[in-house]
Amino acid sequence: MPLPGSVQKLIKLWSKLPGIGEKSARRMVFFLLKQDPAWVKEFSSAILRLAEEVHPCSECGNLTDSDPCSICSDPMRNRRVICVVESEEDCVAIEQAGIFNGLYHVLGGRVSPLDDQDIPCVSVERLKARITGLGAEEIILATAPRIEGDLTAFAVQDAVSGLPVKVTRLSYGLPAGGSIGFADRVTLHMALESRKEM
Amino acid sequence: MPLPGSVQKLIKLWSKLPGIGEKSARRMVFFLLKQDPAWVKEFSSAILRLAEEVHPCSECGNLTDSDPCSICSDPMRNRRVICVVESEEDCVAIEQAGIFNGLYHVLGGRVSPLDDQDIPCVSVERLKARITGLGAEEIILATAPRIEGDLTAFAVQDAVSGLPVKVTRLSYGLPAGGSIGFADRVTLHMALESRKEM
Repeated sequence: MPLPGSVQKLIKLWSKLPGIGEKSARRMVFFLLKQDPAWVKEFSSAILRLAEEVHPCSECGNLTDSDPCSICSDPMRNRRVICVVESEEDCVAIEQAGIFNGLYHVLGGRVSPLDDQDIPCVSVERLKARITGLGAEEIILATAPRIEGDLTAFAVQDAVSGLPVKVTRLSYGLPAGGSIGFADRVTLHMALESRKEM
Repeated sequence: MPLPGSVQKLIKLWSKLPGIGEKSARRMVFFLLKQDPAWVKEFSSAILRLAEEVHPCSECGNLTDSDPCSICSDPMRNRRVICVVESEEDCVAIEQAGIFNGLYHVLGGRVSPLDDQDIPCVSVERLKARITGLGAEEIILATAPRIEGDLTAFAVQDAVSGLPVKVTRLSYGLPAGGSIGFADRVTLHMALESRKEM
């Protein structure tokens, strides 16, 4: 059936989004068609405003609508510890867990030879400048627990090797609430390797 | 972390969409932030235009940007058979399968006592008027294969019982490509009940 052009176009645009195929996109568009036009208008303009108002923090690279961002300018945060993450999303996840009170540094990339990706030079240079400028004592590498995350962590470790700063990394192991039976081989191996005395 | 206001707002709006939780919504928003602003603008305006250009066909109730819709106005379609569906999405699915050459009738609702939903009176009345007006010989009830679909089919059957039209319904059975081992009890039962001689 030739769907109306505007419907077809939006389905095509929508299916570019991550994890969305053509059927999901169609579902979203049909959902929108059933909503109050005022809500749809608000949704549309919220998307439009996003690009206009949000930019990376000039200090940590995190998303912000002020500069420096609310974390970098917060006097209550520990400026001696920097948590290095691959993306802004990782930063949100750690922050929402409420487990860390230091600063962040968003690399904005990862080392992945297969995808021909690397950490942008500028963010590594800025990290080194921040470590020196803030007199940081520790950087915590919170890169993803997989090959690319390992490579990224090693690359950062290598880059800051000349600086007087302690470099740590989040531990591998069994996820809380998981089960031994469903854990994969690599995770089990890591959990065994990093076992702790009780 | 206090995410920028415009990001927070869009995440909230986005998570209202079907099948999207807060984490998926965040993923979409972060994806948009990484796109070319021109693409984001196009996406935003495609959403906005949707509500303006698309409306239900006055004949069949399907979505269209012309009236009557391209199916109702197509002289090549068999006007003696009407396929009755619950929603516009069902109509798209059947049409994309390319298995039906008649007309459609979108009920725009279903009978679901638990959700306090019913078929809109107006669409049932329009169906009866179309059956008479077109001189339809058969209506095929393509309602969902579950309780609500059964109730909807019975309700439509009841409504058109006085008219000289054959009422049929899509068959229940095993889905193509499925396996017996993974089929649920009800489907297996239905498949057994509707078994055919080879």
